Amino acid sequence: MPAPLRVLFAAGHCGEWQIDSISSVIGDSLPGAARLSVRTSDESCAPASEDAAPAWILAGTTSNLRYTTGTEAGALKARQEGLGRPAATRAALIPIRKTQAWWDLAQDERRAIFEERSRHIGIGLDYLPAVARRLHHARELGEPFDFLTWFEYAPEHAAAFEHMVDKLRRTEEWQYVEREVDIRLRA
Amino acid sequence: MPAPLRVLFAAGHCGEWQIDSISSVIGDSLPGAARLSVRTSDESCAPASEDAAPAWILAGTTSNLRYTTGTEAGALKARQEGLGRPAATRAALIPIRKTQAWWDLAQDERRAIFEERSRHIGIGLDYLPAVARRLHHARELGEPFDFLTWFEYAPEHAAAFEHMVDKLRRTEEWQYVEREVDIRLRA
Repeated sequence: MPAPLRVLFAAGHCGEWQIDSISSVIGDSLPGAARLSVRTSDESCAPASEDAAPAWILAGTTSNLRYTTGTEAGALKARQEGLGRPAATRAALIPIRKTQAWWDLAQDERRAIFEERSRHIGIGLDYLPAVARRLHHARELGEPFDFLTWFEYAPEHAAAFEHMVDKLRRTEEWQYVEREVDIRLRA
Repeated sequence: MPAPLRVLFAAGHCGEWQIDSISSVIGDSLPGAARLSVRTSDESCAPASEDAAPAWILAGTTSNLRYTTGTEAGALKARQEGLGRPAATRAALIPIRKTQAWWDLAQDERRAIFEERSRHIGIGLDYLPAVARRLHHARELGEPFDFLTWFEYAPEHAAAFEHMVDKLRRTEEWQYVEREVDIRLRA
């Protein structure tokens, strides 16, 4: 867990990723755009986007583990690969906002739904190392979403990625999702 | 748990709280100042501070429970009182930063240190309702501290407050604190 990394996702005319689709899963979608720029705060000289008029910008930061146990973290670490693999030319950005009812739950109540009953960590583990991911927290930044999850995978794992998101969306945890947008991209 | 509330603590010439002392507990202190202004983002027309040249400003946001179980949350809720009680004319602002080693731990490992071995929630509960508190998270905001805890109590509970912070500082959890400043105030 390095120190929190602030990441800006700017959709518009510029950016290293081509946007294939922007779909609403639950609630309002986001405006359409041609390309997406992903900028981290350690790129000290890069502007948020080269785009003079981005369609939208979403901000998030990486953080510490919130539910994962030491045993689970060890299993994930043994299998996961990092972002930026040359073969991983497909990506997805999935912004999610959870309900007030979710945030009103205590830590043990959220953990029970998240993993004991929904197997969120277990499902993700089944798709490693094919699908690489980075989770960004946005709720405390005053952003419209609580989480921005970024996924990267090779074209031959596109079907596996669909299975994974489909499984997650049928869990008890997803009953607490009140807004979800699914943005698909290619390098 | 209402939605995250952004709070700015601005020290300088103005503000509703008089600063009695600013002491370093661990690591660097903060610059001295006469008064402290506490502003929340729901005070839409109030500036961060009326002070043209604040000595320092610290920002944080409230958030969801990170370690507290449902049972513990119920016990806290039954005993705690809110901020702003007329008799609570003493306050403390205690900014803390934890070590990278703390943030590298998984959720269950941090919980075990925090409560099973350090009784952080249990110690706080022993001083309710005398000491009211509000925790603000700052790590993901890129701030110099991870947490800003704000306490309010009546003058007759000042000794109890000292006992509480002394107990907490002798726990295993505090071995993971790398910077702590203790600011005492009066209305």
